[in-house]
Amino acid sequence: VAARGAAAPFGARLAAAVERRESNLVLGLDPDPARLWPAALRAAPGHGDVAARAGAAVAEQCRLLISAASEACVAAKLQLACFERLGPPGWEALERAALAAREAGLLVIADAKRGDVPVSAAAYAQGLLGSTPTAFGDVAGLGADAATVSPLLGEDALAPLVEGARASGAGVFVLVRTSNPGAADVQDLALAGGEPVWERLALLVARLGGDGSGPADVGAVVGATAPEHLARARALMPRAVFLLPGVGAQGGRVEDLAPAFAPGPALGLVTASRAIARAHEDGGREPAAAAAGAAERLRAQAWSLAAG
Amino acid sequence: VAARGAAAPFGARLAAAVERRESNLVLGLDPDPARLWPAALRAAPGHGDVAARAGAAVAEQCRLLISAASEACVAAKLQLACFERLGPPGWEALERAALAAREAGLLVIADAKRGDVPVSAAAYAQGLLGSTPTAFGDVAGLGADAATVSPLLGEDALAPLVEGARASGAGVFVLVRTSNPGAADVQDLALAGGEPVWERLALLVARLGGDGSGPADVGAVVGATAPEHLARARALMPRAVFLLPGVGAQGGRVEDLAPAFAPGPALGLVTASRAIARAHEDGGREPAAAAAGAAERLRAQAWSLAAG
Repeated sequence: VAARGAAAPFGARLAAAVERRESNLVLGLDPDPARLWPAALRAAPGHGDVAARAGAAVAEQCRLLISAASEACVAAKLQLACFERLGPPGWEALERAALAAREAGLLVIADAKRGDVPVSAAAYAQGLLGSTPTAFGDVAGLGADAATVSPLLGEDALAPLVEGARASGAGVFVLVRTSNPGAADVQDLALAGGEPVWERLALLVARLGGDGSGPADVGAVVGATAPEHLARARALMPRAVFLLPGVGAQGGRVEDLAPAFAPGPALGLVTASRAIARAHEDGGREPAAAAAGAAERLRAQAWSLAAG
Repeated sequence: VAARGAAAPFGARLAAAVERRESNLVLGLDPDPARLWPAALRAAPGHGDVAARAGAAVAEQCRLLISAASEACVAAKLQLACFERLGPPGWEALERAALAAREAGLLVIADAKRGDVPVSAAAYAQGLLGSTPTAFGDVAGLGADAATVSPLLGEDALAPLVEGARASGAGVFVLVRTSNPGAADVQDLALAGGEPVWERLALLVARLGGDGSGPADVGAVVGATAPEHLARARALMPRAVFLLPGVGAQGGRVEDLAPAFAPGPALGLVTASRAIARAHEDGGREPAAAAAGAAERLRAQAWSLAAG
């Protein structure tokens, strides 16, 4: 996979792309190889290794989705779990999907949720956002424009990911308050000072993002399913781009997300996966046409809030 | 990669292996492709794609390390970051390393630190511990005996990983108190009740592990670098297997780990990576011989504490 050409800061690149495309919608790619579009299945080889056939079909599903929905989107978010479960062919499909997204003009977000001790976090940064020196020369990584990362191991473990991203003109989205019901179990625990754990994570995000103007290169994952936290999250992280999963299948609603966009339209990115890829299940339309329609509806709805 | 033959519970399989091999040492495999043994470099093709050459050398490094050190160990821990940074050839090297470990009689621990919302956590469980249904048939995953997982997203996000592991006779190790200095930033935050966050994670581990006797299939990552927490961690998680990273390069000492082993020798697993793979850097010996010697010294030291 080719490296990004530009090494302008992530925040500036994102802001420009959002304005140009009039969209803060992110196309989620989390292909389920048991539930692909018929056209994707037809692209797989008719025989051979099962993982290779599934990988080819998954790559084609991503290509078709990007082709159908990219015009309404500013970025694609690749859920790494859905690719790596197919082994090497899955990782090949991931690389092909990232390339297809880039060719369609989308920024690429590796939804990896990675986090590890510093030496291993640096290895994840190489693989997702940079490159790896080897005895045979450098190996280019996935070349993502941003990756989701976990803050559970603290600041020294986030630092290699932030630094690796910054060196490549990429960004990170730190898990702050996720969209699943269980998020409350740990992220909402009340600390001795009264505030929940997630507010401390938010302060860490703000500090790592540094001072300046415009969107920072350290953003936050803030679930669209708990909009009651959004205003507080925005106050704590004024320059962080919020990646907002949970719209659609998980119950989040675009109209509740206004606080995320308050500082500017690029400061909130609405992600949607099943609401686009499975839009045809709600009606009788062909999958690609249904996906295109669903994506444009979500784009218009989010953009009217963000730019309004 | 072939699936495990036996589906006996992870705890019983681990306890039997520890007794049989008289070892609770885990061989950490975190190959740095810029710093491989000369014999590993020689095994790579002399030309062709850089990632493929590096992947072949990394697989050979793992095979050589396993060959040198497996007799002193009960398991191998594969740091996924070090493989996936090489893309598809890295994932192939990961599968080859897992196979080599299994053929040497070692349990395989996927050091993945994965954690995501439930639907994605289930996909990680398929890839690491189970298999993935596809339109073309099932795709076998890595077939690991256990994986490290992150609890930041709470119980509903851990559940698919625990259930996926249990269905395959595998286990999980939940991050509770990690070995890096930054662990204190989040894991040690004091809650309203006075206890640190990590103690709540420990209670979650104990509950997910359920009742019974012998080692549970839900274990905990507890860094060897903060032994002052071990007795408390053991009190909160009486049946959890502790995976104890941080010995050697990170400053942890085997002799401080006694509380981990109190309920039985299989309840604490000491991991060592650089202390084995780079043992030759401290003396003039050949890498494999130095690794074998370092592993046996660590095994004997840990075993005398654990079984003593």
